[in-house]
Amino acid sequence: MTDLGSVDRDVVRVKRAGRSREPDRLAVEEPCEIRLEGDSVAVVMRTPGHDRELAAGFLYTETIVKPGDIGTISACTDDDALNPENIVEVGLVPGVGPLTLPQRNFYATSSCGVCGKASIEAIHVADARLREATRFKAEVVTGAVPALRAAQTTFEATGGIHAAGLLTPDGELLVVREDVGRHNAVDKVIGWAYLRELLPLGGHMLVVSGRQSFEVVQKALVAGIPLLAGVSAASSLAVDLAADSGMTLIGFVRGESFVVYAGDERVI
Amino acid sequence: MTDLGSVDRDVVRVKRAGRSREPDRLAVEEPCEIRLEGDSVAVVMRTPGHDRELAAGFLYTETIVKPGDIGTISACTDDDALNPENIVEVGLVPGVGPLTLPQRNFYATSSCGVCGKASIEAIHVADARLREATRFKAEVVTGAVPALRAAQTTFEATGGIHAAGLLTPDGELLVVREDVGRHNAVDKVIGWAYLRELLPLGGHMLVVSGRQSFEVVQKALVAGIPLLAGVSAASSLAVDLAADSGMTLIGFVRGESFVVYAGDERVI
Repeated sequence: MTDLGSVDRDVVRVKRAGRSREPDRLAVEEPCEIRLEGDSVAVVMRTPGHDRELAAGFLYTETIVKPGDIGTISACTDDDALNPENIVEVGLVPGVGPLTLPQRNFYATSSCGVCGKASIEAIHVADARLREATRFKAEVVTGAVPALRAAQTTFEATGGIHAAGLLTPDGELLVVREDVGRHNAVDKVIGWAYLRELLPLGGHMLVVSGRQSFEVVQKALVAGIPLLAGVSAASSLAVDLAADSGMTLIGFVRGESFVVYAGDERVI
Repeated sequence: MTDLGSVDRDVVRVKRAGRSREPDRLAVEEPCEIRLEGDSVAVVMRTPGHDRELAAGFLYTETIVKPGDIGTISACTDDDALNPENIVEVGLVPGVGPLTLPQRNFYATSSCGVCGKASIEAIHVADARLREATRFKAEVVTGAVPALRAAQTTFEATGGIHAAGLLTPDGELLVVREDVGRHNAVDKVIGWAYLRELLPLGGHMLVVSGRQSFEVVQKALVAGIPLLAGVSAASSLAVDLAADSGMTLIGFVRGESFVVYAGDERVI
């Protein structure tokens, strides 16, 4: 069974007793472009469904429109659009405007990381294929999460912060960075490697405390990291990108078990 | 004790036995503007610390620079800047460039919601003061989280999705929306109210499954919502904005207890 918000995929579940292939349900993540009077205002990564509400709520809470300003909200009618179902067209009530946008090109996001892109077609910044053969032991994967948590000094104090860590195939934790933003913690870890001229990071594993979203997979891919693991669930688009690019993507690392969404041949 | 990443604040802890004022440690959230060759490239909401790594990692993972392109990373030297410690200046190695930015104005974010703003000074979209006197019973606050979770159909199936819900002071759940993006779930709920011409939402309570960040507080404030509650911790900037605007901000709603970061007079 599949609805707009979730989709079934085959995953590999790794436990102490062995591994099994089974279906799992993933939250759907798709880009949505919000157009106002024909101009692209924002591209947000969202779960499909209630897109008219999303567009109205985004434009209102970002103070681009006031109550009563919106006249029409409709699906995209642009015949040239590749994915018209991911484009929402908003029209204003006659006489409203011109709106004072914060700046001419107001590209924005909501926890998405695709902001700044001019269109849906531009969200794929990485077009790489990871071909390296580094293998990672299952116990290195299960040990990475407690190692990350042990190194999280600010989380310990505040209970409200994300972390990312970089590990070797032997399970050695090279660096941990914490941040209120999931993506920032990943950027800091990869930036650490950038400043030490360690890029690309083939042969390394990235572990994150937050959600394994499309953009985290994309950032890891840019850096050449072959294995991304975390305690949370991955989204549909994150799994698609990992599978297409040859990355190993792992979620729900808990105790001695985890779920492999893509690239299970790298786990031994 | 306070470091760059956390700060102590007085909060009100509400339990079945009563309420007490006590210190709590919060994760720090501050905007950081990344400038490349003097041009503002992004404003991200981040936890201060390792800002050079953040800037390098962001520019690299967004494929704006390649390894070796960065020559200098320094604190802001602009004497006119209000918060130079929140601005990082990146310079390229001589001969590198011109870079092909995805578009002229590449404003971006990492789970921040301040993207699209031209500068740090522009991140405050809301300048409101909530003056209404609606009161909320403590049991309505503690009941809101289980009510939200019970209504989360996609979370049940996938384990990986955020939710936001709007409640009356009597605890009636009016609408729940789910999304992979924290901000999107809030936008959908407020968009639901926009399309039904129910704005502003004075007298209502917003409950969220994700982090109570600066931007979620800001979105609730735009909609006139006097009480925001969630299961997670709030950041320093979220608490500051709630306190300044007269909003009641609540976190760590678990069982029969919770933490009030600001506006505890609305909780009875």
